[in-house]
Amino acid sequence: MKAWILSIGNELLNGHTLNTNATFIAENLFNIGIDVTKIICTSDNKNEILAILNEAYKETQLVIATGGLGPTTDDISKDAFCQFFNQKLVFNKNVWHNIGSLFSKRNIPISELNKKQALVPEDAIVLKNQLGTAPGLVLRKNKFVLIALPGIPFEMKHIFENEVIPYINKNFENKSIYNKTFLFSGISESLLAEKLYDIDNILRKNNINIAYLPQPGIIKLKLYYKNKCEEDKLINNFISFVNTYLFDYLIYDDDISLQEILGLKLIQANKTICTAESCTGGFIAHQITSIPGSSKYFLGSIVAYSNEIKTSVLKIPSVTIKKYGSVSKEVVEIMAINARNMLKSDYSVAVSGIAGPDGGTKEKPVGTTWIAIAGNNFCISEKFIFGNCRIANIERTSNTAFVLLIKELNKIIK
Amino acid sequence: MKAWILSIGNELLNGHTLNTNATFIAENLFNIGIDVTKIICTSDNKNEILAILNEAYKETQLVIATGGLGPTTDDISKDAFCQFFNQKLVFNKNVWHNIGSLFSKRNIPISELNKKQALVPEDAIVLKNQLGTAPGLVLRKNKFVLIALPGIPFEMKHIFENEVIPYINKNFENKSIYNKTFLFSGISESLLAEKLYDIDNILRKNNINIAYLPQPGIIKLKLYYKNKCEEDKLINNFISFVNTYLFDYLIYDDDISLQEILGLKLIQANKTICTAESCTGGFIAHQITSIPGSSKYFLGSIVAYSNEIKTSVLKIPSVTIKKYGSVSKEVVEIMAINARNMLKSDYSVAVSGIAGPDGGTKEKPVGTTWIAIAGNNFCISEKFIFGNCRIANIERTSNTAFVLLIKELNKIIK
Repeated sequence: MKAWILSIGNELLNGHTLNTNATFIAENLFNIGIDVTKIICTSDNKNEILAILNEAYKETQLVIATGGLGPTTDDISKDAFCQFFNQKLVFNKNVWHNIGSLFSKRNIPISELNKKQALVPEDAIVLKNQLGTAPGLVLRKNKFVLIALPGIPFEMKHIFENEVIPYINKNFENKSIYNKTFLFSGISESLLAEKLYDIDNILRKNNINIAYLPQPGIIKLKLYYKNKCEEDKLINNFISFVNTYLFDYLIYDDDISLQEILGLKLIQANKTICTAESCTGGFIAHQITSIPGSSKYFLGSIVAYSNEIKTSVLKIPSVTIKKYGSVSKEVVEIMAINARNMLKSDYSVAVSGIAGPDGGTKEKPVGTTWIAIAGNNFCISEKFIFGNCRIANIERTSNTAFVLLIKELNKIIK
Repeated sequence: MKAWILSIGNELLNGHTLNTNATFIAENLFNIGIDVTKIICTSDNKNEILAILNEAYKETQLVIATGGLGPTTDDISKDAFCQFFNQKLVFNKNVWHNIGSLFSKRNIPISELNKKQALVPEDAIVLKNQLGTAPGLVLRKNKFVLIALPGIPFEMKHIFENEVIPYINKNFENKSIYNKTFLFSGISESLLAEKLYDIDNILRKNNINIAYLPQPGIIKLKLYYKNKCEEDKLINNFISFVNTYLFDYLIYDDDISLQEILGLKLIQANKTICTAESCTGGFIAHQITSIPGSSKYFLGSIVAYSNEIKTSVLKIPSVTIKKYGSVSKEVVEIMAINARNMLKSDYSVAVSGIAGPDGGTKEKPVGTTWIAIAGNNFCISEKFIFGNCRIANIERTSNTAFVLLIKELNKIIK
């Protein structure tokens, strides 16, 4: 089955808001076998919304729309939907009750404008919004279905998972998509594509799609297919190929993040970790702790952004910093060793680099980064030269640190 | 002038990749006065791309497309563009030279597939890609212009800023957009909208648009308008209104992030800061250090994720943790005071909470969060009950900490 996603909001078209909603919906529809063939962002403009609904009515069977259901004057989606589906707005007691209890729980006075949110198209199926004031709506015209959701991401997600997925599974026939993901590091996208050129062609001819998804420091390769039985043999051939010819670059063979892989490996090895961060400023610790349950293996971090803290807290001799500079093999290794001793973890990772945009020199240009890993009786370190973009450098340093840690853990797991 | 953004890539439609490119382009076009009226994501499918180009040709004058210019088999954008603009692909020496020098600098072998990237439509203006292998392309058919860029975000951004903006400014007449932004905290979107209801109506009647952009813990309110002279009086009236009736909720009156505001205030007050983080796991430090130049005022952070580190590094007496729990006024205040003493900063912020999804109790449900701020001879703290979503809780804690710090700094600046 095919679907469109319609994202409504001026804030999307003027770049003030990143459209995370469309990506979330697309991924969830994809996983239950619904092909999203188009994502359209349009403004809070009734005529534009109507034009897109008319086109969608001809081209697809399902539209998931988000945005424009709020209480403010720029929220006009409901009017457009009423016109397209030939509906009147009626006051809905349940929705009003939900809004009332939400406001009293948060102890904030209810506003007159919120009454507008209790108005819903007369024939709409109302999807309860447990986290906010605007409910979801399902509207139908012959075989064409529109599901409209509020634009606030966490409200939308909650309704989508609890109401929309069950509704779709009940009302549409769809077939799950299978996928197999590989994570590579240390190889360029083009070289990887060249090595896979022949086998890639065979897969495509057999309805197995292959996608290259480069991210800072890693490449995600994703195969997806609809018929599990028929295509399993080809997938297994591909796995053998990867294990034979690309094993050195293979980090993992499932679609989870590097910090999740690290977490699984640490749990498997029953080891703990800490970080000592300079240029990443806490980002590595944040990435690790974004995973629920990370307290099982992550103890903490010393973010030593200033040299004074490298000396006073991490006990790096100031002569060492003076002699080698804070972005050096010598300093980063002591950071790793001392953080590990101080926080009493099995492993530690330390990073020190020049994230940019300033601070580069001829010998150490912006992007120069040292990463060290310390464990029981060892400390290794490696130098990298990343690029000129501060945010990308921080992300690439973090990903590279995770890859090095995972490789180190693989030594004791296997 | 009006434009469309065309984002090409299966990875966007199946939700594997967040479309940050479209948001970046939209914001940059908006700032130079070009209205993006539609953003369309489509698959790596030649017929789909052609259909959209045909529609765009009728509806708009400029399309910025991204994606599908890479070396792999799923990259077919160039074929579609050649067909639409009736062009042949020709080998471009400069592009090939650029690819060669890029690979030799990184010391990786050049792949046969990269040769494909040196093929460009015969009449295209080539926009140099200094950071990657796929160049940008400008193609024209009568008054209709397509600018095609690679999909890798940092490459796209670099070409956009260095080549596309100058090209647009040179070739199109466009008029800058003015905007005025306010950041509010401690008020709901609906109550804010109600308080602004009358003045909002007046602004809209006078071609001043107003957008409510809620983010975790704050609401961004943005006015934008095209005629500076004519509308300045109305904008000034609005500013007076906000200062008179909404001053208690106003955090800042410009469009910068909370961590940038904090940075400016710290520089203005000539003060330094550190953080002691439990539930945010380094996120606050990361947010602060995502700003270039933050080393001027940020010294470092102790991420004390485990209770052992709260005791061993931050010297919280273990009896205090046992008696009150680590998510408590008592613990978070000692965290703030001790981190400030240890890292020798003027201010410190400490947070301890239950980010979820597990770890909540009846007395302290998921979302319970304590935030403390310590300075010279004072320590204040406040309890918050956020929601059930781990990532949102981390973000909301960080934003709330920034708001409290900014308010504290305002006391000594004014």
